[in-house]
Formats: sequence, C-alpha cells, structure tokens
Amino acid sequence: MFSVTVRDHMMVAHSLTGEVFGPAQQLHGATYVVDLTFRAPTLDADGLVVDIGLASGALAAVVGDLSYRNLDDDPSLSGVNTTTERLAQVVADRVAARLRAGGLGPHADGVTAIAVVLRESHVAWASFERAP
Amino acid sequence: MFSVTVRDHMMVAHSLTGEVFGPAQQLHGATYVVDLTFRAPTLDADGLVVDIGLASGALAAVVGDLSYRNLDDDPSLSGVNTTTERLAQVVADRVAARLRAGGLGPHADGVTAIAVVLRESHVAWASFERAP
Amino acid sequence: MFSVTVRDHMMVAHSLTGEVFGPAQQLHGATYVVDLTFRAPTLDADGLVVDIGLASGALAAVVGDLSYRNLDDDPSLSGVNTTTERLAQVVADRVAARLRAGGLGPHADGVTAIAVVLRESHVAWASFERAP
Amino acid sequence: MFSVTVRDHMMVAHSLTGEVFGPAQQLHGATYVVDLTFRAPTLDADGLVVDIGLASGALAAVVGDLSYRNLDDDPSLSGVNTTTERLAQVVADRVAARLRAGGLGPHADGVTAIAVVLRESHVAWASFERAP
Amino acid sequence: MFSVTVRDHMMVAHSLTGEVFGPAQQLHGATYVVDLTFRAPTLDADGLVVDIGLASGALAAVVGDLSYRNLDDDPSLSGVNTTTERLAQVVADRVAARLRAGGLGPHADGVTAIAVVLRESHVAWASFERAP
Amino acid sequence: MFSVTVRDHMMVAHSLTGEVFGPAQQLHGATYVVDLTFRAPTLDADGLVVDIGLASGALAAVVGDLSYRNLDDDPSLSGVNTTTERLAQVVADRVAARLRAGGLGPHADGVTAIAVVLRESHVAWASFERAP
Repeated sequence: MFSVTVRDHMMVAHSLTGEVFGPAQQLHGATYVVDLTFRAPTLDADGLVVDIGLASGALAAVVGDLSYRNLDDDPSLSGVNTTTERLAQVVADRVAARLRAGGLGPHADGVTAIAVVLRESHVAWASFERAP
Repeated sequence: MFSVTVRDHMMVAHSLTGEVFGPAQQLHGATYVVDLTFRAPTLDADGLVVDIGLASGALAAVVGDLSYRNLDDDPSLSGVNTTTERLAQVVADRVAARLRAGGLGPHADGVTAIAVVLRESHVAWASFERAP
Repeated sequence: MFSVTVRDHMMVAHSLTGEVFGPAQQLHGATYVVDLTFRAPTLDADGLVVDIGLASGALAAVVGDLSYRNLDDDPSLSGVNTTTERLAQVVADRVAARLRAGGLGPHADGVTAIAVVLRESHVAWASFERAP
Repeated sequence: MFSVTVRDHMMVAHSLTGEVFGPAQQLHGATYVVDLTFRAPTLDADGLVVDIGLASGALAAVVGDLSYRNLDDDPSLSGVNTTTERLAQVVADRVAARLRAGGLGPHADGVTAIAVVLRESHVAWASFERAP
Repeated sequence: MFSVTVRDHMMVAHSLTGEVFGPAQQLHGATYVVDLTFRAPTLDADGLVVDIGLASGALAAVVGDLSYRNLDDDPSLSGVNTTTERLAQVVADRVAARLRAGGLGPHADGVTAIAVVLRESHVAWASFERAP
Repeated sequence: MFSVTVRDHMMVAHSLTGEVFGPAQQLHGATYVVDLTFRAPTLDADGLVVDIGLASGALAAVVGDLSYRNLDDDPSLSGVNTTTERLAQVVADRVAARLRAGGLGPHADGVTAIAVVLRESHVAWASFERAP
C-alpha cells in the first residue's frame, strides 16, 4: 500500500458543548496543523498516488473555508460539536467530496482511502480515515 | 475510523539481557516520549472517541508508575526484558486495564483499539497496538 | 552562558486590529506552543539555572490565566493588540513578575534573561527576550 | 501488533518525467528523511521485533547506495520515475531483499510487514508498506 | 528584543568543490527547510516586528528563485561553493535586499537583524545572521 | 555570524543530589538528544564554518564516552551533579578540548563559539555556550 501526505494549517475560534469539556465550553481557539493522506494499492503510470499540487490545493481550499473564523457561527457546521476528531472528519469529508467531483484530477483515480490528522498542540491530536 | 492521541513522557534507568544488546546490557537509561492512541469506528453523542482529560490522566498515571526509577528493580517488571517494544506493550496493557475498570469513563465505551508509541530518540521508536 | 527551557501551550480566541491583519481581523483562534527559557552565566551550587519544577509551574500558571478564553474580553489585555510577538512579551513579563516576587525560588537568583517563543503553527513563530 | 522504526536520510539529485510534475521536471534535488518500520505480531524470546543494530545498518546500507548521487544516472533505477512514493517502494523492496537474504538476522524471523516513509519536506511525505 | 520567524523550503541539486566534501563533490541534492527570522528591539504601533504576509511572500520569492534547479548552473551563484552555511547567507542577503528596497513594507522599518536557518536533514543545519 | 549544527544522542542512567530534585534523586535515566553548534564570523575558503564530517565525528566520540552508562559511576564525572545544564557544559567542554587539540581540523580555525543543547524530553531542554 502506498500513501502521500501533505500538511497545512488553520486557525479558528470555537466552543464545545457538554460538561465533559470543562473550560473548553468557553469560547477559545486552536491552530490545527492538518495532515491529509491519500492511500492507493498501486501507483499510476506516472508513479503517483495523487498529483501533489492538486492535493495541496484541495487541502488549502478546505482549510481556507474554515480558517480565521469562529466555527460557532459557521452555518456549514450548524449543530456540529467541533471536537478535534469531528473536525478531522469534516476535513476528510470535504476532501472526499472534491475527489469525487474530479477536483483531485485523474491521478487520484486509484485512491482507496483518505486520512486526516489534526494536531491541536504538541501533546494532542486526532484523526479520521474513510473511503473516498 | 477515528482516533485521539495524547503525549507524555517517562525517564527511566534499565539494562537489557542478551548478547544482542551489546553495550545496552550495561545499566543505562532513556527518556521515552509516549504517544497513547485510542481508536473508535464512531463518535459518541458528544463527538468524542474518549474524554481527553481522562485519557491524559490515565497516561500520566501509567508513566508516573514507571518514571524516575530503575526498571531493573521494579517488581511489576520482574522477568521482563524491557526493550522499547515490550515497554510499549506494558504501557498499552496498563491503559487497557484502566479502561476495562472504568477509569476512562463512559465516553471510552466505543474504543476498539489502544496503540502506544515509545520514542526513545530522534532516530528510533517502537509501538504496540491491542484491543482494549 | 547556560539556559533551561520548558514547554507548555495555550488555546485562545482573539481578533487583531488593523488593516494589515486581513482576515485575522475576524474573530479566530490559535494554539500557542510556548517555550520559556531562563538564561544564567553560571550555575548555582546544585548545578541549576532554575528549579525546573517551579519553572514549569510558573509557565503553567501564566498560560493557564490566558487559556480557554477569548483574549478580546480579557481585562488584563485591554487595549493590547494580541499579535504573537506581543503575546510573547505578555508571557515573558508575567514570568518576570513572578520571578521578582520570589515565585521561581532561590535557584533563580542568577537568572539574567527570560526568553519566550510562541509557536502559532508549523510555519510561524515569534519571540521576546528581556532581563528579569 | 508490534513495530520498531529507525530513521536515516539520503540526499539526492533527480528529475521527474511527465507534465504533471511542472518545474520538478528540471534537475533538482531532495533530502529524504527515511523512516523504516518492521512489524511483527509477537516478540521473540529476547523481546524484540528486530535487532535494532542490524535494522539501522540495513537502512544505512540501502540509503548509502542512493545518497550523494544523481538518481537519473543510476542504472539500478533505469526507467523508474523516482517520485517520493516510488522511492519509498524502492527502499522497502531493497530492505525486504536483505531481510530475505538473512541480513537482518534471526531476530527478524517474525517480521510480517516492512513500511517506509520518505519525508521530503516539512509539508510533504509518502510511504509504502509490503510483506517481507 | 522581539523576533518573528516564517518557514518555507526549497529543493535543489548541486555539487560541492573541494576534497573536504568527499562524496558530496558528486552531483546530489537537498531539501532545505528555511527559517527566516526578523528581529526588532521594539514593536510598531500595530504590535508587529514585520507584516507576516509580506515576510512569507518575500521568503517564498527568494526560495522560489532557487527551487527546482541545479544550483551549479545558476548564473547568480557562479563561483559560489553552495555549502549550507553559504546558502543561508545567500538567502539572508536576498531578503535584506528586498527589505532595503521596501519589499517588506513600512512595518519592517524597525528590523535590526535578519537570520536564516537552513535545515538540510534531521541531523544537520546551518545559519547566517546579518543587519538588514 | 554563521553557524553549523549537528545532532546526535546519548542514553544514560544517573541520579541527582539535592532535595530540589525530588523523585529525580532516585536512579533513573534519560535520552539526551544533543545539538552541537559551531559559530564563526566568516567562512573559510571552502565556504565552511567547520568540516561537518569531523564535527559529527567529534560529537559521536563525546557522546559515545557517556552513552550506555550509569553516570553516577563515571570517574570523569566524580563530584559532578549531572543536571541537564551541567551535562551540556560537559559536552561543550569536551568538544572544545578536541577542537583545541586539532581534532576538528583546520576548517575549524575560525570558530569563535561552541554551543550545546541537550533535549531531555519533548517539553524540556538546556544549553551551554562557550568560547573554544
């Protein structure tokens, strides 16, 4: 199995709903360093899992839609408790939608999994992996 | 599949038994930077794999029982050759026992795997993964 | 010259004032991974620049006062444009005040400089250094 | 499942063939920081996945054969488009050949997978995993 | 003293002249992860050392002029032995020229030093620091 | 000012003397990831601060003399409280002695400072800097 990963980041405000979150129920914020991985069992004729330029661009677009915002006010996240693991899923789902819509180009035709890691600090991170 | 990871560390003395270990048969030591991961196929109603506060606390407790000690003299490790891969298992097993005893709280009910990575330097690490 | 550094982090919401900040004028957030360094030309009788336990505790207290908050609403930062470089100064100033008040203990008597680095992402950070 | 990983690096020149590569079609170069992982379901009698000295030596030998060269002129890579994902496979295949030839010693008898990650920058990496 | 740092990278081929370089006399390559730091004794009215957008843009332009090339064929480096320490100076000098030409904007008026670190692997890096 | 840095590591057991050290008074251990920096105001005719091969070799020799040992039993450290900051000085002093004895070669003639950072975990490190 092959994989290719690209890294970007986003800086957001948000609050979390539920007693389990303690002080994180207050409005606060985070930098998420985002690692986006594409997996494929074989490489294409050019020796690629994915066009890394398109992969970086797709990630930049997805994190760009979330960056420099208060996620509590983002209509696309209405009703979503934006824990790190849930946000990893949001990023992966949006990348998968772009892939299915052709935005990752023909080199991505062999991709069988998309994984996203969100690093929220030097001591905590979360991930989500799905089929495209 | 989702995951959440927390990081902590422990500083221990030990020696290894067996010719294969060369100079590491002498009493020496290591800092292990420990990454503890919980995996779950779905999130709970709060959007969590695990309560990160309880996860960090469980890891701190497990590494605290090993830290600032000579592992060669630890009765709980009697007869154990404390290689990095074996210590990863020891940490994972102790976390799993805490989870089964309820110490990770109800948010951990959906956890299907526990993985531990022990980083012993900038050029070497080992891991162990198990069911809870 | 000797130094000792300890690391912690804080997660905050804030907005920045001024056209130069572009989208960062909107309410957003950041994780700041904070590196606090103490410098001293000589070590004390115990071989220390500073008691690392007290140093970690002082840093935890200072970042704890800022964490899980919207800095725009923090009275102690009223009128402060909380750029990363300015926040590095805020952290350093608060640590220096604790040191002068004796909170770092007698081992810190030889400290001649306090430096703070705030890492806001994998591609940007800022620092401030001052006398205690 | 257990794993052990060792890290090394190689510095190479190369060019890539295909319009998709844009400016990387020109002769350029890369440092690849290489992480080599061995997986095994159980540990041997010494508590090992693999003899870490032999693992480091095998990795050093494999990257040494590629380092400080122009890969475009390497006969062993004739006809290979040396993308990062393909080079990860090259490294893994060469390590696997050494393992099968006995070069990793008897401690490696239980190894069931070999994984290689090639980090080409702070924002991009690729991997390949195979059976030995 | 304040500082702000931004990170980018470049991927180049080159060879080094002189017996001291051993195998690095052959054409090979490197990824240089580049950290560009601006220092200033005080912040401006907006609380800045430098406009981080312009800083990132200046660094991207400087590394862009060197990336995806064989430095041995770059006329602007004719006669330059492109060691890591010398390349750090090349990058710093080019950033300084941009700053003096106004390319870093008025926020950079207080900058008193420019420092560049080039990381060539996980085990080696070099730096150069100069006045603007 | 130029600098060149090389990284290596050592794994040691030791204990610390003094109530301030709490549980670290017990025999325990550490991995120290060691960054050795040479500074010089100018480069030599080959464009170097130091021959990086000799620098890496000198560092390997110095950490090799300390590795896989109990520092409490090392006669060369008799009476030394081996705090991280003190060990940074020990390493720097030993490198400086090698430099003065010619072990870093003629390329090191312009070196004006030697700095050593010892990283004991992901959250703590110490340094010492001296003239050669």
